[in-house]
Amino acid sequence: MQIAVVLYDRFTALDAVGPYETLGRLPDSETVFVAERTGPVRTDTGNLALVADRTLADVPSPDIVVVPGGPGQLPHMENPALLDWLRAADATSTWTTSVCTGSLLLAAAGLLRGRRATCHWLALDHLRGFGAEPTGDRVVVDGKYVTAAGVSSGIDMGLTLLGTIAGDEHAQAVQLLTEYDPQPPYDAGSPEKAPAHLVAEFRTASRFSLT
Amino acid sequence: MQIAVVLYDRFTALDAVGPYETLGRLPDSETVFVAERTGPVRTDTGNLALVADRTLADVPSPDIVVVPGGPGQLPHMENPALLDWLRAADATSTWTTSVCTGSLLLAAAGLLRGRRATCHWLALDHLRGFGAEPTGDRVVVDGKYVTAAGVSSGIDMGLTLLGTIAGDEHAQAVQLLTEYDPQPPYDAGSPEKAPAHLVAEFRTASRFSLT
Repeated sequence: MQIAVVLYDRFTALDAVGPYETLGRLPDSETVFVAERTGPVRTDTGNLALVADRTLADVPSPDIVVVPGGPGQLPHMENPALLDWLRAADATSTWTTSVCTGSLLLAAAGLLRGRRATCHWLALDHLRGFGAEPTGDRVVVDGKYVTAAGVSSGIDMGLTLLGTIAGDEHAQAVQLLTEYDPQPPYDAGSPEKAPAHLVAEFRTASRFSLT
Repeated sequence: MQIAVVLYDRFTALDAVGPYETLGRLPDSETVFVAERTGPVRTDTGNLALVADRTLADVPSPDIVVVPGGPGQLPHMENPALLDWLRAADATSTWTTSVCTGSLLLAAAGLLRGRRATCHWLALDHLRGFGAEPTGDRVVVDGKYVTAAGVSSGIDMGLTLLGTIAGDEHAQAVQLLTEYDPQPPYDAGSPEKAPAHLVAEFRTASRFSLT
């Protein structure tokens, strides 16, 4: 199987690396990082670049498409080169997936119409404008479309899909090798659990920071 | 504060990206990815490269040192260029940290002698050979040395150190923005929790795959 992870300027690194490190351990698979142009692609902080080894045109029909999110997703919601590639790749993909605001790119390409889907909590409602049905679940599977919530949720999505494709035992082996036994020092990872004033502050600023 | 994340051939991507995405959100900080040479550095799978923007020599005295692990760590345990840099950087650092087998590089540089420390579960016992005291905890703080267990534990380490430096509320805000509310589909992330036969199989093969 060929897994294509799509990069674009100002994506969020962990959105891409979470699925890469889990789903990318699928047996007999090849993971390729793709972008409009090959070469380094800067993340949202500007402090890191991941390398796109192939262009979108080089990889026309991956079996699995992974679209990360990040503040850089906004201009690409009207980028015909990327949206056309997503539609074409989706026409032959076995799974089309996203992390964080990557689902807004799938939605903008018209791929989530009538589908249940998720997104970063701050941008979740935007899915509705594209005919998708937003849900607050961390990983949402609707047919071949697998969307994950914000940033770190791509790890859970990757393991979930890995288990579906390669079986529970293989996914457990990858969980064990990546020692994914999370012990966050706080319980503030969702808007239901975090201090209410933090949630309110981010909601006020969200349209500028994330979408 | 300057945060230096050290890259080397065949490191594990999530080891580096977990702390980058959490600790790297420290206010008034700069995160720099460093390596012996600037340019793309390939990860352990060969399918991804992260870019080192600066050489080790360019960044002689970071406030925080982050050393990821990965199978590529083994040859560097006898690489004087890297070990000398680690010793020199540690002489002035505020925090010296590692993820996964990155702690073996700190140990090989002589920095963990007499210290409690952790490592990937498959390589934990190797710490003892360098005078460190291995512990199975996910994040271990001993003075200014903060070591994390395997791969994904760098996220917990990053949030823990972020909270120590910038305060609980800032760390909670970063946890909320990265939506780090883990919901793994299995409970197999440590040798105590995973199916026993998987643990046994990896222990048999471990000296070839990880250290």
